[in-house]
Amino acid sequence: MSDNRHNLKPEELAVLEMDPFFSSDLTVNYRDHMGNDEAIVEAMLVSTTDAAFTEPDHEAYLASFPGRLNFMMKHKHGSPFEQAALQFYVKAPIMVFREWHRHRIGFSYNEASARYKVMKPEFYIPSKNRPLVQEGKHSSAEFVPGSDEDHSIMWLNMMQAYTTQWMAYTNMIEHGVAKEVARAVLGVGLYSEMIVTLNPRSCMAFLSLRQHHADAAFVSRPQWEINQCANQMEEVFANLFPITHKLYVENGRQAP
Amino acid sequence: MSDNRHNLKPEELAVLEMDPFFSSDLTVNYRDHMGNDEAIVEAMLVSTTDAAFTEPDHEAYLASFPGRLNFMMKHKHGSPFEQAALQFYVKAPIMVFREWHRHRIGFSYNEASARYKVMKPEFYIPSKNRPLVQEGKHSSAEFVPGSDEDHSIMWLNMMQAYTTQWMAYTNMIEHGVAKEVARAVLGVGLYSEMIVTLNPRSCMAFLSLRQHHADAAFVSRPQWEINQCANQMEEVFANLFPITHKLYVENGRQAP
Amino acid sequence: MSDNRHNLKPEELAVLEMDPFFSSDLTVNYRDHMGNDEAIVEAMLVSTTDAAFTEPDHEAYLASFPGRLNFMMKHKHGSPFEQAALQFYVKAPIMVFREWHRHRIGFSYNEASARYKVMKPEFYIPSKNRPLVQEGKHSSAEFVPGSDEDHSIMWLNMMQAYTTQWMAYTNMIEHGVAKEVARAVLGVGLYSEMIVTLNPRSCMAFLSLRQHHADAAFVSRPQWEINQCANQMEEVFANLFPITHKLYVENGRQAP
Amino acid sequence: MSDNRHNLKPEELAVLEMDPFFSSDLTVNYRDHMGNDEAIVEAMLVSTTDAAFTEPDHEAYLASFPGRLNFMMKHKHGSPFEQAALQFYVKAPIMVFREWHRHRIGFSYNEASARYKVMKPEFYIPSKNRPLVQEGKHSSAEFVPGSDEDHSIMWLNMMQAYTTQWMAYTNMIEHGVAKEVARAVLGVGLYSEMIVTLNPRSCMAFLSLRQHHADAAFVSRPQWEINQCANQMEEVFANLFPITHKLYVENGRQAP
Repeated sequence: MSDNRHNLKPEELAVLEMDPFFSSDLTVNYRDHMGNDEAIVEAMLVSTTDAAFTEPDHEAYLASFPGRLNFMMKHKHGSPFEQAALQFYVKAPIMVFREWHRHRIGFSYNEASARYKVMKPEFYIPSKNRPLVQEGKHSSAEFVPGSDEDHSIMWLNMMQAYTTQWMAYTNMIEHGVAKEVARAVLGVGLYSEMIVTLNPRSCMAFLSLRQHHADAAFVSRPQWEINQCANQMEEVFANLFPITHKLYVENGRQAP
Repeated sequence: MSDNRHNLKPEELAVLEMDPFFSSDLTVNYRDHMGNDEAIVEAMLVSTTDAAFTEPDHEAYLASFPGRLNFMMKHKHGSPFEQAALQFYVKAPIMVFREWHRHRIGFSYNEASARYKVMKPEFYIPSKNRPLVQEGKHSSAEFVPGSDEDHSIMWLNMMQAYTTQWMAYTNMIEHGVAKEVARAVLGVGLYSEMIVTLNPRSCMAFLSLRQHHADAAFVSRPQWEINQCANQMEEVFANLFPITHKLYVENGRQAP
Repeated sequence: MSDNRHNLKPEELAVLEMDPFFSSDLTVNYRDHMGNDEAIVEAMLVSTTDAAFTEPDHEAYLASFPGRLNFMMKHKHGSPFEQAALQFYVKAPIMVFREWHRHRIGFSYNEASARYKVMKPEFYIPSKNRPLVQEGKHSSAEFVPGSDEDHSIMWLNMMQAYTTQWMAYTNMIEHGVAKEVARAVLGVGLYSEMIVTLNPRSCMAFLSLRQHHADAAFVSRPQWEINQCANQMEEVFANLFPITHKLYVENGRQAP
Repeated sequence: MSDNRHNLKPEELAVLEMDPFFSSDLTVNYRDHMGNDEAIVEAMLVSTTDAAFTEPDHEAYLASFPGRLNFMMKHKHGSPFEQAALQFYVKAPIMVFREWHRHRIGFSYNEASARYKVMKPEFYIPSKNRPLVQEGKHSSAEFVPGSDEDHSIMWLNMMQAYTTQWMAYTNMIEHGVAKEVARAVLGVGLYSEMIVTLNPRSCMAFLSLRQHHADAAFVSRPQWEINQCANQMEEVFANLFPITHKLYVENGRQAP
């Protein structure tokens, strides 16, 4: 088979020589945003009064905005909550991205491409605080912590499988198999990364489905990993849009 | 009929007493934005290299970004162009909003509500530079300037129709007919206003359909009024994302 | 001004000579559909078992489908409810279409174009059973029936406004003003028509916002006219997807 | 570790005992559809004439429909092409679904869930007619056939990696690790299956990006596997909507 190394960039060759490494990290980092609670209210005011942008009692309007936000939240006037933006950098295993990308509306993604680049050998293995064992039939399943032995068995199996797939991947690429073909053997536990842009409304829709809260109006049962990501996203959201977030929680964690 | 005036707010009563006024203005004002050309490239880099955010040759990457943007534009890698946001305040007749709202994807709207507020009597009458007369069958129609007489006839008819509908509207509301019912008589030439949030990709999709350029790869024939709005939007877009805009034009004004 | 009549088709000239006529009709007619309750369950089964399409106990699966639909509805597994389609012909005033078109997701529209055709002079005037009078401030408004006198006042005002705008419209077109300009004077009470394609999930989302039910989990306060349209749509939906509809109602009229 | 087998259904236990098997199949099967070329034209006619549904020359309209479809295609009047539906069953490796799910608009998916069911050990290995070797830098890459030796090396590496990951997966599940955790080791070459519903417009958008045609207005370079899927979809589309398909091809394979 033709040696493919001349087709690879130096940094790609360097990646191929890496040993696989394992991590339990799930990363959702703030990148950028547009707007705040006040801007959402101002966007709403165009619906109800043309005074919003010109009148002397503009201050009074703004003072009233928690009440106005609550009115919108309660009555499901959702569109003003789309008049802002949040952007994140996310690093997580492919299996998390698979769930995430089912959110089609109000979400923009740009993800690492295993067609264009050699993927790094970074693989996900759950940490000790990940409830590991499923009890009960699936529709009413509970997840409980695993014992030390459980985690050992998992580590051993995952390390072995990941290491073997990494060897197969690098071996194929070095022999000239196209990256986009060779990647077939890489597990959905491989880390990928993406940029995500969304808005407060699609953010709340995501949180309502991807977080588990026993006191929510609708109690969702998301996979633990995406729930961790959602928790990080919620923290940023709560900092940037504190009143919107507070009202979201108080209204049963339902997206307007 | 029960007098409805006690149900109306003072500013609503003031609106009802206004005389109708006429305008040819079409307004698209910048409100806010997130990101720039560089941020689009950075979002793209996550696809092709994980070095984007950490490596010493970060500067070199950025220097290369016109070339990278052009590659994305040419090869229709559209998703990085969604990783930014623009927000506008728009004031235009309802008939323009009717066309605009057919853009469903990558567009968020919050518009004045004739259910919630008494609409102001501001009506659209085209200016002299609006080609007024349609020649030829509709599928190949050309619009040519109207004569002074043409414009006089139009003014007379529009003023009369608008004035009559405003009288009917105010009359019904003062007699207690619900605002949401009374508005039925108001023409689609009535001014409305909205906040719009979009992204560079949906912006380019809008421009490609709502501007007429004889040298575009696809020559669209939008209504003159929405074309004027698109021109204003393009100016803001070109200022905020100059390289993206330049490449959009050079690639035949097609959205990636 | 140049006489424009040679640019108009015979059927357009015929329309221009019509007298305005008035109606209270709101029409939502079934046109076509794809799928049924069973097809939704079959689409879902691909998620939970690959046995769905091949195994001998296929019948048993199907027998279990009300329970399965209920599980999906309750747990907000919404995507299987997108695996079917409904298509309607709708005839209603423009003001109804304005609200309808804010539903962007899972909705496809093709509407009459006042740029391409001469609109017919058919105008909406509410019937006696339309609650006409708004009591209370807008956020907690109640609509109560109008008296005979109320309806007389409304009829008089609407007829006059509609007739005047129709005269202005036809007059301008006969003098060569482009249809797309002349239509500015036509009220949002003018009838338009459209074809709408949607799916059971977007249908339920529409119904949950555009119908008023005091016993719903979220009590919406839609405008009466679009509520009437939603009622007609619901009837078709209930006939075509009886179990899905029943479970939608039992689960508080919330879209999954 | 607690033995998890009592939590598994008999058919799940049977799956865990399977030996891995390998396939090159890519399956896109017709399931259902709504509408045809004529229905698209009828939906369009509502835009341009209200005569469509009632007049005596209805037949004449229909006779003219290739010309009308071509007009819409050429002038990018896309909305009538959304007034129909197609539904497919797809079986392909996860890496194909990853690309497919980036199509957010006009696409509904319901996919196998590795949270709910034990995945079957069916893995993708490319056939001999898959161009295996990438030559040139990635942005201008060409894929050329692999030699017999190339395919042998690939087979060996893939079989080994898949077999090891299947052993790790079954081992973890039998020891009680939750299915949703154990699946992390399964490669993106594992087969999944889904139901997809789309419309002619989103179908054409998909084909324009996921097929390679040297004579298209925009020459896309999709991954070979999704191109094979697109070819199967195109065949069904061409059978159900022959005139629309023909015009799509003649207009440079661009979605309207």
